[in-house]
Amino acid sequence: MNWLDEINWDSDGLVPVIAQDYKTGKVLMFAWMNREALQLTEDTQQAVYFSRSRNKLWRKGEESGHTQKVHEIRVDCDEDVILLRIEQAGGIACHTGRNSCFFKKLEEGRWKIDQPVIKNPEDIYKPVA
Amino acid sequence: MNWLDEINWDSDGLVPVIAQDYKTGKVLMFAWMNREALQLTEDTQQAVYFSRSRNKLWRKGEESGHTQKVHEIRVDCDEDVILLRIEQAGGIACHTGRNSCFFKKLEEGRWKIDQPVIKNPEDIYKPVA
Repeated sequence: MNWLDEINWDSDGLVPVIAQDYKTGKVLMFAWMNREALQLTEDTQQAVYFSRSRNKLWRKGEESGHTQKVHEIRVDCDEDVILLRIEQAGGIACHTGRNSCFFKKLEEGRWKIDQPVIKNPEDIYKPVA
Repeated sequence: MNWLDEINWDSDGLVPVIAQDYKTGKVLMFAWMNREALQLTEDTQQAVYFSRSRNKLWRKGEESGHTQKVHEIRVDCDEDVILLRIEQAGGIACHTGRNSCFFKKLEEGRWKIDQPVIKNPEDIYKPVA
């Protein structure tokens, strides 16, 4: 059986994906993949997601340069969640210019930012001259 | 503004949740919460999820004893994914008796199990005499 056929894709043909830094163990981001994205991720060893808002494949880092080199692909016990262990180019996974998307922590009933911006988002996404 | 109001709940009123070991950084499981589950998780500092298959609140460990003590609650940049950093009772988060649900790794086109069963699932879920 093809390994992709063992995935329990949801009714939209998608699977949730957790991206984790392969060295630090830090959870960097969460996104979705369809079958094609997961196949491409395996083929290229670079993370390719499916953007639900843009309804198309999204090669992580295609605009920002912040690609994700894949070290491990894991699936959970129900075969309906993927865990990628990756190496994050530039150390920036988040579109806000931070290492991780999970930079807000609940403290005394408020979400508090506790991680620095490494690079100004305007410098990440500015048009190439 | 109440911190729960800042969450972007999906059309079913749910949010995906990643549970990570607060010490080792290992990703242990993935589940969902509704508003009540997240409120209870914060109130009790024990993970409470929402079971989509059973359509009800699921206090993690209520049957198995493998509860999750919450150390940190985080939200991502889009406020639509929760990351819990937890302490896993018994070291077993998975219903298969393993530490983590992500015990299958892709190797040469096959999913290979690379994590041991710590406790027989039959011993975890057997009815109390």
